[in-house]
Amino acid sequence: MSATPAAPPHVPFARVTRGDAVDSVHYGSVAVVDREGRLLFAAGDAQYLTTTRSALKPLQALPLVAGGGIEHFGFAPEQVALLCASHSGEPRHVAAVADMLERAGCAPEQLQCGVHPPLFYAAREELPPPGAKFSPLQHNCSGKHSGMLAYCRQHGLPLDTYLAFDHPLQQAIRSAVAATTGLAEAALVAGIDGCSAPNYAVPLDRLAYAFARLASGGDDARYGAAPARLAAAMSAHPEMVSGEGRNDLILMRAGRGDWVTKVGAEGVQAIGVRSKGWGIALKVVDGNARGLHPATVAVLDLLGLLDAEQQAMLATWREPVIRNYRGLVTGQVQPAVRLERCG
Amino acid sequence: MSATPAAPPHVPFARVTRGDAVDSVHYGSVAVVDREGRLLFAAGDAQYLTTTRSALKPLQALPLVAGGGIEHFGFAPEQVALLCASHSGEPRHVAAVADMLERAGCAPEQLQCGVHPPLFYAAREELPPPGAKFSPLQHNCSGKHSGMLAYCRQHGLPLDTYLAFDHPLQQAIRSAVAATTGLAEAALVAGIDGCSAPNYAVPLDRLAYAFARLASGGDDARYGAAPARLAAAMSAHPEMVSGEGRNDLILMRAGRGDWVTKVGAEGVQAIGVRSKGWGIALKVVDGNARGLHPATVAVLDLLGLLDAEQQAMLATWREPVIRNYRGLVTGQVQPAVRLERCG
Repeated sequence: MSATPAAPPHVPFARVTRGDAVDSVHYGSVAVVDREGRLLFAAGDAQYLTTTRSALKPLQALPLVAGGGIEHFGFAPEQVALLCASHSGEPRHVAAVADMLERAGCAPEQLQCGVHPPLFYAAREELPPPGAKFSPLQHNCSGKHSGMLAYCRQHGLPLDTYLAFDHPLQQAIRSAVAATTGLAEAALVAGIDGCSAPNYAVPLDRLAYAFARLASGGDDARYGAAPARLAAAMSAHPEMVSGEGRNDLILMRAGRGDWVTKVGAEGVQAIGVRSKGWGIALKVVDGNARGLHPATVAVLDLLGLLDAEQQAMLATWREPVIRNYRGLVTGQVQPAVRLERCG
Repeated sequence: MSATPAAPPHVPFARVTRGDAVDSVHYGSVAVVDREGRLLFAAGDAQYLTTTRSALKPLQALPLVAGGGIEHFGFAPEQVALLCASHSGEPRHVAAVADMLERAGCAPEQLQCGVHPPLFYAAREELPPPGAKFSPLQHNCSGKHSGMLAYCRQHGLPLDTYLAFDHPLQQAIRSAVAATTGLAEAALVAGIDGCSAPNYAVPLDRLAYAFARLASGGDDARYGAAPARLAAAMSAHPEMVSGEGRNDLILMRAGRGDWVTKVGAEGVQAIGVRSKGWGIALKVVDGNARGLHPATVAVLDLLGLLDAEQQAMLATWREPVIRNYRGLVTGQVQPAVRLERCG
């Protein structure tokens, strides 16, 4: 049998305690960059190749927004935010997505995201009613997919193959992801997302760089005002990006307009900080949000970004209590992440 | 800001792929020991301090079995297996637990394990019906708790405080855990389990050692035939230890009587191998069973314990396919664990 490989350089993000013992530990990496992409602070492997999942959504919306799609279809700012959403399928989300589809001359059946019980049930710790049937409109990615269909409609592209890797829309998105992360297209590592759209893995600091650019507020050399416009819509309408009781809504409310944040499946969080021109990206290597949210709040605190009121707003996300079936407190999640100053 | 701490010596257990990328990696440690507790094979940190959770159940049953409780109450072998179970709350489990309580002169209301939807729903990928009310009899630990109440009844101990750390039953269990893992009682690190019972963390190789002793078949210096009797009941009636579609049932069926296996919450798996006199313990450091089951099958294979039929029975546990909301295959879980030969 061969030798045990060396452990990779991820670091403890959060410990899950049980009485005097530690049940589990979540490891991960962090990158904090400035708007030129220079690494300012790091933990673990700041270049860790990371599937971006839903943190990619603002970049996936760039071709539509930069191509005048918002004006073309008359989308409201709340609908621009929905392009970047992992929404909860709340009535306001469903209504706004249905309106987007109608404006694009499409039907809900043309969404190829699939169907799942809307996330508001889990956020409320409720189960869906028995035999309930759900619509693709309630899928957390339906805003993104509606924007994809709208792009195809605007540019006269085929609608039924809009998720194919070689569809012009997906090629435009691939180009936008490369441009905004500062990578060559050939460096993007591809996979299919939970919603069936192409997704890309990039080094963690490149995801942070993209969010620094989103938050920079200026005109982008290639995409003009589109990045700033997407970020502004997200920060102004966080309730359309996420849902009640969920982390991006809480984070952006706490950020009071300074932060643009987007979580991704499998333990990814990206944050742009306008006042600093910073981009922050975190990845829990095991993919569990249990370790992500405490580490995210701890990183914001370590960076000096939290005042007393923000500390209080985020306290239960920073150190959640764990209860058992009888409601007894058996432990808690304790953030453990530290940052190194770079450069 | 202080320096990043060194990564601990856990090793990759399993990779979760997505297309050409890796979504997440689960890390962990393994210990394989002989019946004298000597470390034979290891991965990562074989002495990692590990909360045992439900893998502790056979040891928690030792005071009852060694004290003649089985004969005293006339428990059947299936009920001996239930003492060690994280059962699914299937009708056969509920009926056998209700009978144990009746034989002990106790009522279901005296169980202090709490209530949760029986595990058979999740195993079938079903949701419980709306408004369904559940009983503590259906709690996956109700067999263990019924055995605890029976011990108190047999020995004239208080019933209402049977979960207190200083209750004579819990003191007897603490002593049994120390004796069977070969540790001083003071070395046990305590916490409260999901079912509200005291639980203990021990080094991973000590959990493996306890399972080597369970599988040894001989008389124990302190607990006589009780360890072998518990292990025999578990291997003979795996359907009472686990439930349809769940890992310990599949593992022990594949083991054809040679293996005694017990999973624990937060990524713990213990296995005793009679034919070898070996004990095996695995811990996924992030606590996710997604990384545990593929690593468990891979370790059994690396140890040369799987013939072609067993390989086939365990194939879907070794490398599960991952599908998205539309049923598309987006990736798979691939075991990555390797073992070092020790000593």
